[in-house]
Amino acid sequence: MTDIIRAGTPGTPGTPGTESLVCRLVDAELLVPTGVLGLYGRSGTYQDVADGIGAMVRRWGASLGARRLHLPPVLGRATFAHTNYLESFPDLMGSVHVFSGGNPEHKELLRRVESGGDWPALLEPADVVLASAACHGVYPLCTGVLPIEGRTFDVQSYCFRHEPSPQAARMQSFVMHEIAHVGTADGAWNHREEGLAHGLRMLSGLGLDMSAVPASDPFFGRVGAVLAAGQLDEELKMEGVTAIPGTQGMTAIMSANSHRDHFGVPFGIETAGGAVAHSACVAFGVDRIVVALLAVHGLDPASWPSGVRDQLGLAGSLA
Amino acid sequence: MTDIIRAGTPGTPGTPGTESLVCRLVDAELLVPTGVLGLYGRSGTYQDVADGIGAMVRRWGASLGARRLHLPPVLGRATFAHTNYLESFPDLMGSVHVFSGGNPEHKELLRRVESGGDWPALLEPADVVLASAACHGVYPLCTGVLPIEGRTFDVQSYCFRHEPSPQAARMQSFVMHEIAHVGTADGAWNHREEGLAHGLRMLSGLGLDMSAVPASDPFFGRVGAVLAAGQLDEELKMEGVTAIPGTQGMTAIMSANSHRDHFGVPFGIETAGGAVAHSACVAFGVDRIVVALLAVHGLDPASWPSGVRDQLGLAGSLA
Repeated sequence: MTDIIRAGTPGTPGTPGTESLVCRLVDAELLVPTGVLGLYGRSGTYQDVADGIGAMVRRWGASLGARRLHLPPVLGRATFAHTNYLESFPDLMGSVHVFSGGNPEHKELLRRVESGGDWPALLEPADVVLASAACHGVYPLCTGVLPIEGRTFDVQSYCFRHEPSPQAARMQSFVMHEIAHVGTADGAWNHREEGLAHGLRMLSGLGLDMSAVPASDPFFGRVGAVLAAGQLDEELKMEGVTAIPGTQGMTAIMSANSHRDHFGVPFGIETAGGAVAHSACVAFGVDRIVVALLAVHGLDPASWPSGVRDQLGLAGSLA
Repeated sequence: MTDIIRAGTPGTPGTPGTESLVCRLVDAELLVPTGVLGLYGRSGTYQDVADGIGAMVRRWGASLGARRLHLPPVLGRATFAHTNYLESFPDLMGSVHVFSGGNPEHKELLRRVESGGDWPALLEPADVVLASAACHGVYPLCTGVLPIEGRTFDVQSYCFRHEPSPQAARMQSFVMHEIAHVGTADGAWNHREEGLAHGLRMLSGLGLDMSAVPASDPFFGRVGAVLAAGQLDEELKMEGVTAIPGTQGMTAIMSANSHRDHFGVPFGIETAGGAVAHSACVAFGVDRIVVALLAVHGLDPASWPSGVRDQLGLAGSLA
């Protein structure tokens, strides 16, 4: 089984060892290879840790009065269009296409499948795309005038980003858990600041050595470089990074983001005071956090420090 | 917010009232509309019930020594090709397409987005498709010779089926939780039979009035009608059905399926005795079960019978 991942995950040229952690996770049967780079099944043990992180984020969300939402892994295409994701990250998105033909078209589809032809060319765009970020699904729920305190969501979903990689912490399909706030400019900025501090405390408390750094999103192309520079300049995106043993450099396992009115404008969201709403999200990369914990504390969560196990609710749950 | 779902979910002609349950679930904020038929966010209360069902299935799987796997909502395209799903259910599948162009192609993409043109035509098939069934991901893990006892998996994932519908129990994106067995012909058949009995007991114990009926999959087209008749004749598919108040007819909320060598052949799976492996799965439609429980016991799980709450582990979890 590890042959699949090993065959499928050559070390990136110039960065020896990038594949070692993922192979260790596969050998320990924590991740299960699928033959696709960056796409894994999760074992029960892995999932129990992920669930523990989810519960920690949920408790924080509850303390803020957040409305809990579990969103499916696909998003309405019309909602996606409003996010302007295609402008900035066309290379990362996934569009869902479906077959709507009859018997003759099906015959042609199967002919192409059998002959190795281009059968996906016979499909049509569905009314959904893969979710790129968990919080994209909450903005259409806010269209109109907000209550005076704004709205806060505890929202999670599987997200997809098309960036095949042999690195354990860069999956194509992964769980993102966010506490997102939509409200006034000040309210959104405060949420970002307080959320960054809270997230760093929470992850440090799990034994991870965290730092906060200004960062930029991986904007696409020539125009994107300008956008990234602006984002960095204004410190709109802060990442909580840590060193994951067995991988190169620092890895972002959470981020705290000010969107300003990026979503308020297209989704028509207004504050109680009549201004265009601002938004901010504090996003936890659940899979990256699980991978970091496994790399730092060892591949057997049963032997992790009891304080870490207690916070994750693992006491007794690992048979 | 309910306007979106109400606008989007007209009653199907000739079946008045099909939309009423989903509107009640939306009004109670258990399901959150997305503007796409059959695509909903789940509230925390809804998810707690779903998690309780998951834990019940998991306990059964553990008693069978099943290997627990949480699979992502997308499946490798190569694995999908081996399932022959396109032959039987082309209309239900979802293919993922991505953008792999450079700056000039991105400019054209945005030009089409802005002019309402066919931008998805500029995308290329990714190496993943949406998962159609949770168990599809386990067969490639079995390629080769099985241990003498076969292999049993507790496997779950979000699945996608392109069948937009206003019926609460027919979602496009839903969680399927399966206990799947790959082994000898007898072993697989026994798993199907015992799993059917276990599933019916489990769901009856939650206060649902269950019946077992021979059924057929929704095979596509003219050839499909023949396949469906054969499947019914041989009772390869048994469904656990129940009446969901507020919906028409009976709804399948679980199924127990004999695949014979449908997966053993293309995935090259052999029994210890050298025969082509058979497989069987017992599949729980988690979302359909949650919807059935809400329709039967009422929209507030806090007021459900204590025996049902206890089995679902809800005592104290609903704040």
